[in-house]
Amino acid sequence: MTRWRLTIEFDGAPFMGWQRQDHGPSVQQTLEEAVERMTGEEVRFYAAGRTDAGVHALAMTAHVDIEKPLDAHRLREGINALVRPAPVSVTEAREVDDEWHARFSCIGRRYLYRILNRRAPAALRRGHVWHIPQELDVEAMHEAAQALVGRHDFTTFRSVHCQSQSPVKTLDRLDVERDGDEILVHAAARSFLHHQVRSMVGTLSLVGRGQWTKTDVSRALEAKDRQELGLNAPPEGLYFLEALYPDD
Amino acid sequence: MTRWRLTIEFDGAPFMGWQRQDHGPSVQQTLEEAVERMTGEEVRFYAAGRTDAGVHALAMTAHVDIEKPLDAHRLREGINALVRPAPVSVTEAREVDDEWHARFSCIGRRYLYRILNRRAPAALRRGHVWHIPQELDVEAMHEAAQALVGRHDFTTFRSVHCQSQSPVKTLDRLDVERDGDEILVHAAARSFLHHQVRSMVGTLSLVGRGQWTKTDVSRALEAKDRQELGLNAPPEGLYFLEALYPDD
Repeated sequence: MTRWRLTIEFDGAPFMGWQRQDHGPSVQQTLEEAVERMTGEEVRFYAAGRTDAGVHALAMTAHVDIEKPLDAHRLREGINALVRPAPVSVTEAREVDDEWHARFSCIGRRYLYRILNRRAPAALRRGHVWHIPQELDVEAMHEAAQALVGRHDFTTFRSVHCQSQSPVKTLDRLDVERDGDEILVHAAARSFLHHQVRSMVGTLSLVGRGQWTKTDVSRALEAKDRQELGLNAPPEGLYFLEALYPDD
Repeated sequence: MTRWRLTIEFDGAPFMGWQRQDHGPSVQQTLEEAVERMTGEEVRFYAAGRTDAGVHALAMTAHVDIEKPLDAHRLREGINALVRPAPVSVTEAREVDDEWHARFSCIGRRYLYRILNRRAPAALRRGHVWHIPQELDVEAMHEAAQALVGRHDFTTFRSVHCQSQSPVKTLDRLDVERDGDEILVHAAARSFLHHQVRSMVGTLSLVGRGQWTKTDVSRALEAKDRQELGLNAPPEGLYFLEALYPDD
């Protein structure tokens, strides 16, 4: 048996999310079926993060155990041939030891959220950005974001379906910057709650519109109450950027 | 009557190209039908460039004459609402004088060609790049590209369907650079022949693979013979970037 570490890029649009679902296609199922066709083995993928329906990944990390002897090149090319036409692509494959775990060994996760901030709707970037036509105050958004950085109880910014044991997380970074006609939000933490990034971005968008202040964001955080959330941003602007491991 | 200058972004995937065709949807028809529904007038769009099927535009410039009094904001928002769900978006609209012509007043055109140069196929960028899995020699491509810069008879790099009066064009710039896992080709000229950018990029890809040298590129150019073309690159990597006018 070999444990393989894979780096995976995917467009979230056609999927119900990373995790297997009864009611629609998932990235996990797409990958598992490809490996099962290659090897004849029943396999299971474990990922650093379980993204929602519509959320994209530039470099998701996952692992899978395979009995059949394979080399990294053949595994990667085989999966990429078999997943077609699904928009999933394995960009890297390498052997890791049996103790290594894509989820439990992960010590950091980075997300990017893209807002298209111009009057005109997206054409080339449709499905890949959240379109907000009103001009947003990026400096106010960045300033308000700093109220969320650090160790906090993020209950306000947590989905009711979140399965995390504790709502207390340490947010290492939440930066907001303008890049041409887009506003980029960069988030980094050891781990995130379910819907945390989208909930934070949605709330910051209210600050950008001038409807909320940094004080309102702090108050919502301190309330520890999902009802105090400003807004949950849509999935199509969110990208899982990368997972960090001690051995990297 | 007011002449309107419009800047238009579009995803070329669902279109037969810019120009009206009997056998499928075009960007021109999509825009004309939107304005006709807004105004009740039969209108005609003229563009700086007539892109092929599958070719994208970040900022195509076009003009249209409209009798009905409108302001720029209403025109842009109206078209953007009416073209849906087609991936076309008017990013700017402004009045110009009756002498101004999107095609004939244009003094410069810029194109970008994106090659995804990694083993793994595109996932997020599917339909927006040309995937070449073999590692390309970018420096050799850039060096060979310089053989095409300047005033030449580009018959070799011209579609047999090209309607230009003369095959002689002055290529101002053809730069090749690596940007992460992509190779970007930047092309600038007063005007281009039909298929010229794709023909030049396809030929440079052979240089990148080590199959052709700069001398082969020069020889193909000097042959003034379409049969000597190395390869025509596919449309999905090509973007019309912008059109330049004396008054800008």
